[in-house]
Amino acid sequence: MNLEKLDNDLAKIRELRPMVHHITNYVAMNDSANITIAIGASPIMSFAHGEMEELVSAASSLLINIGTLDEYIIQAIMLALSSAKKKSVPILLDPVGAGATKLRTTTSIGIISEGVEVIKGNQGEILSLLGEEGVVKGVDSKAELAAETVKEVSKKTKSIVVATGKRDFISDGKKVYVMENGTEMLGKITASGCMLGSVIASFMTIQRDYLTAAIEGLACYNIAGEIAAEKSTGSGSFKQNLIDEIFNISADKVIERIKLEEVL
Amino acid sequence: MNLEKLDNDLAKIRELRPMVHHITNYVAMNDSANITIAIGASPIMSFAHGEMEELVSAASSLLINIGTLDEYIIQAIMLALSSAKKKSVPILLDPVGAGATKLRTTTSIGIISEGVEVIKGNQGEILSLLGEEGVVKGVDSKAELAAETVKEVSKKTKSIVVATGKRDFISDGKKVYVMENGTEMLGKITASGCMLGSVIASFMTIQRDYLTAAIEGLACYNIAGEIAAEKSTGSGSFKQNLIDEIFNISADKVIERIKLEEVL
Amino acid sequence: MNLEKLDNDLAKIRELRPMVHHITNYVAMNDSANITIAIGASPIMSFAHGEMEELVSAASSLLINIGTLDEYIIQAIMLALSSAKKKSVPILLDPVGAGATKLRTTTSIGIISEGVEVIKGNQGEILSLLGEEGVVKGVDSKAELAAETVKEVSKKTKSIVVATGKRDFISDGKKVYVMENGTEMLGKITASGCMLGSVIASFMTIQRDYLTAAIEGLACYNIAGEIAAEKSTGSGSFKQNLIDEIFNISADKVIERIKLEEVL
Repeated sequence: MNLEKLDNDLAKIRELRPMVHHITNYVAMNDSANITIAIGASPIMSFAHGEMEELVSAASSLLINIGTLDEYIIQAIMLALSSAKKKSVPILLDPVGAGATKLRTTTSIGIISEGVEVIKGNQGEILSLLGEEGVVKGVDSKAELAAETVKEVSKKTKSIVVATGKRDFISDGKKVYVMENGTEMLGKITASGCMLGSVIASFMTIQRDYLTAAIEGLACYNIAGEIAAEKSTGSGSFKQNLIDEIFNISADKVIERIKLEEVL
Repeated sequence: MNLEKLDNDLAKIRELRPMVHHITNYVAMNDSANITIAIGASPIMSFAHGEMEELVSAASSLLINIGTLDEYIIQAIMLALSSAKKKSVPILLDPVGAGATKLRTTTSIGIISEGVEVIKGNQGEILSLLGEEGVVKGVDSKAELAAETVKEVSKKTKSIVVATGKRDFISDGKKVYVMENGTEMLGKITASGCMLGSVIASFMTIQRDYLTAAIEGLACYNIAGEIAAEKSTGSGSFKQNLIDEIFNISADKVIERIKLEEVL
Repeated sequence: MNLEKLDNDLAKIRELRPMVHHITNYVAMNDSANITIAIGASPIMSFAHGEMEELVSAASSLLINIGTLDEYIIQAIMLALSSAKKKSVPILLDPVGAGATKLRTTTSIGIISEGVEVIKGNQGEILSLLGEEGVVKGVDSKAELAAETVKEVSKKTKSIVVATGKRDFISDGKKVYVMENGTEMLGKITASGCMLGSVIASFMTIQRDYLTAAIEGLACYNIAGEIAAEKSTGSGSFKQNLIDEIFNISADKVIERIKLEEVL
């Protein structure tokens, strides 16, 4: 188990309300801001080059999500990365659509080459980060393949990697954990992965063991999703209930439902 | 009736989850993405010039909505149109605000001149597409005028035209249908027309008779709106309930409530 | 009391549906559009330089919110200000983040120098508008300090000033009012201050005594928030309920709960 610090970490976020600077896509901005407040942190959202250094320096973590790109945003990302590095602000990358277009794959790999603490994507996006030589050999099952891939990406990128899917995999390049929580309703709303990024980035502000932060954030998000799904009559009510349940999440609720094990 | 294929078409969307590429406005992005998933399709949202060809080529329909424009977006639209034409991806245009500003009218007419399969707007926007010579003569009633106008626009643009209002008109340039479903609550939320565009564009991915696709999408949207309005206590709950009802829509529910007739 | 015209003003907005042009941030756009419709007015959202004059000229008030800036948006703001001045369209400024970055402080002060009717911000943002010499001396309590500061900013900027916080202060440079309504849930959703701006700007369209418009808008928003909080189970449901309650707000509900007094 990696959740013994969750109670304390949640309390710390809610007490300190640390700032999470977001450079994220237009679709997710509102939802990501709301979920960040719901878990207890303080979102900032800005692309503006002229204030990037001030904002990132004042933040306790930086989330970069490439869901909607243009030249101005790509430059904003580069400015943010450089400020974060200077001030040791931990970075989470959400490589939305990596593997689907060259622009997204290249941009993701460029960001990773600067060094990021956590990468969170779906399994396709994570796999694409291995590039051409990205085939993991000598494995027997699909589950084993996923686990090995996540470990490979983690080793290659020197980042904690979270790969979401029917089951979610988390690796620090040495160990691999699988989490079997969540609900298919999380696939029925837009910005679902983006909001997960915001929750993990919120934990990264106060939990500097980033493997632990990633597991804590993922566990809270998945289990809030499970509880929300039980109360929802469709994808519209699910989104609202998900934010409510993150607002009301506790370590007890998480620990009661968590299905997490080390697989590699 | 044009709804005998609705059951099959809905099932097909939900099975295939086809991609609908959106170039849409900042206000509607999140809602349009959610309603697209709720009906069963897969939204993509991107303005980025550098990936437009890849994304449009992978999509099964293209939605262009001019609700918030700038030079970059206008260029993105032109790139998207050209890729869609090359790959025969059907296009829906939502000419938001056409008639209200020169920029919007001109941009709409420019897009139409490239050839689009479906145009969906409110009656004022649709009327503005006729330009200066846009007066329809020799009609006796307001309803007849609306019907004749929609037919004229359809003939002129060689597109299926959907003109929304208290009553909605649909024409392929030969016939005109009127639909008397919906609720005034649809006028009480932002992005209502934009979401309708997403639902129609979702049907266009699998139903290549675009008159049928337009009627199917409009019928689902209006009737989901009717059911949602019955459950809502204001415009906030209405939006959520509308997405829930699209998520839960079925051909049976639509056929039970539909008020559709051929008028011209 | 400054609410004797509220019943009439609300009815007028809902009858005339006046246009409120917004130049606002990407995070708040959807929520601000929805709350504007919920109170009864008609939102427009556009940054496009090529249509700014047409849109602002057709609007009954202009809201400028600097939550997400870039060079294009700053230019759009300047074009909008100039059109508003020419046509005597009243302007509300929401100086989001003023004091937090130089870009925001400078941009806010630049806008104010053109002359705006109402400035609405939180107490930190409002204080930052006093600049370096911004210390108010000779006061005994925190509450008195806040009241004096708001009055000073109002005198300096020649604008009605609304400074939100645990208690909200409103001043026209001569008098200062304090309002003790609202709920801490308003701090648990993003775009909360932005939506308040939209509600005040909606009243500014028809109530040309802007002190009254500011008090009316603030009172409706805070009291809708109070009622919404009683019905909510978290921040997700609170946002939806807030929009519902603005949709259903009445002068009676406001007058029953209002806690407003003149303090200076």
